[in-house]
Amino acid sequence: MKIAYFGPEGTFTEQAARCFAGSMDGEDISFSPLASIEDVFEAVETGAADCGVVPIENSIEGGVNTTIDTLIFDADLFISKQLSLPVVQNMMVSKKNADGRVSKILSHPQALAQCRKFINKHYPDAVTEASNSTAEAARITAGCGLERGGTAAIGSKNSAEIYDLKIIHENIQDDKNNMTQFVLLTKTDTSAPMIGRKTSIAFSTEHRPGELYKILDIFALWDLNMTKIMSRPTKGRQWEYVFFIEIEGYENAADVADALTMIKRKTVFFKNLGSYQTLAPPQ
Amino acid sequence: MKIAYFGPEGTFTEQAARCFAGSMDGEDISFSPLASIEDVFEAVETGAADCGVVPIENSIEGGVNTTIDTLIFDADLFISKQLSLPVVQNMMVSKKNADGRVSKILSHPQALAQCRKFINKHYPDAVTEASNSTAEAARITAGCGLERGGTAAIGSKNSAEIYDLKIIHENIQDDKNNMTQFVLLTKTDTSAPMIGRKTSIAFSTEHRPGELYKILDIFALWDLNMTKIMSRPTKGRQWEYVFFIEIEGYENAADVADALTMIKRKTVFFKNLGSYQTLAPPQ
Repeated sequence: MKIAYFGPEGTFTEQAARCFAGSMDGEDISFSPLASIEDVFEAVETGAADCGVVPIENSIEGGVNTTIDTLIFDADLFISKQLSLPVVQNMMVSKKNADGRVSKILSHPQALAQCRKFINKHYPDAVTEASNSTAEAARITAGCGLERGGTAAIGSKNSAEIYDLKIIHENIQDDKNNMTQFVLLTKTDTSAPMIGRKTSIAFSTEHRPGELYKILDIFALWDLNMTKIMSRPTKGRQWEYVFFIEIEGYENAADVADALTMIKRKTVFFKNLGSYQTLAPPQ
Repeated sequence: MKIAYFGPEGTFTEQAARCFAGSMDGEDISFSPLASIEDVFEAVETGAADCGVVPIENSIEGGVNTTIDTLIFDADLFISKQLSLPVVQNMMVSKKNADGRVSKILSHPQALAQCRKFINKHYPDAVTEASNSTAEAARITAGCGLERGGTAAIGSKNSAEIYDLKIIHENIQDDKNNMTQFVLLTKTDTSAPMIGRKTSIAFSTEHRPGELYKILDIFALWDLNMTKIMSRPTKGRQWEYVFFIEIEGYENAADVADALTMIKRKTVFFKNLGSYQTLAPPQ
């Protein structure tokens, strides 16, 4: 069993991949960190990996557009499991930087944004610099002594371990309720068990007043609870939208199946993205 | 009249700012390029500028989250005009690079993504490198001769003029229908003329099944056409959403006013973001 994930090692996506692996009947599980979200989709589609792990939504930043658009427009994959992890950021320096001086702070722009208030309060004079990932920031920081006044990286505890860094501040993200949701992608839609499932679909309607309302009317008729709704551009038609919606329920349960049949008939584009269970977050 | 915009000079936002200026009764109009979208909001709120110009949505990439979130959660500003501009990317080199050799391509990550297919086809061996803006890429390229095999920037014609670069490929974005929508922000909501107006609102509902449906029901009752719908995380409450919706009509027209009153009563959070006209794109 080979699990591809959006890498490099030491990111939250790797942590999610390991949680998904823990829920599998594990024989030989191997992990393959890939350079982009698109690469993960491709690995699963071509069979180079059995399944793939990518982030889909952050509770502060919102949907991860590359994941959502690739699911809707490009790939033929299904969501087969879902998991939310708390985003906990830490500040770390090279062990050569014994007194923890920091004049430059490196991280992925999203991680820097998540720690903006902390940085402004504790390091108002430090320069912040964007890296391609939190793990890359950790790797670069590992090679930095004090030559330029001290470099720090912001990232997960995991990346501090991998690159042998010293954590000088823990849990520094401004919002302590920050969570990222990840999905496990597979080539086939998973079947039983039916309980506790959610189902994701994508659709677009005719461009007429009230069309989205008619679709939500169908959910209301069948008393289905919507747990996610995101709109994305159709790309081909300007300022028109495809909706990505998640409902509670299993696609083969009678009510959900009836509602989906009706929605399929009332939309110009419809895609079933799978039914899945949500894993409990690790303790 | 001072117009702040998300700079630097030479970006599409500057072009939008100049279009908005062209629609004003122009006396003394001056432009102030600022380093971030948040800085533009702040300049208008503090009165350092009379109005501000920021991007709000791209027809391929979707909503500009910083603009939408600041409008919803942080600022007390109104949209007073709207404009869509075609995104036309060009490849440009220093005039010292007489034979137009290119081994490295610099631009903002979004612009690089918009020209991915062109780059893969025509410059499969070139290294791509991220810059903070398309204008910064042009500035760096202006200083590059052939020492490292040739550097090119991707950006607007405007930035080629500002940095005195030679355009070697025009109109290279993969999607020829790519448009970005900009808004002009002011401290007070604009009044007459009433015709041809759209109105933006933001709201969130109780977290119960069918609540969004009830709101869309109000639009349906008053026959109001929804031209934009985007969902954003509430931040405080995980996996709940604030909706940013644009409808056709003027907030003080009887039907729209009645609908908005009813929506205000049925939501836990409601914000009127202004009524505005859409400028015709420049010829």
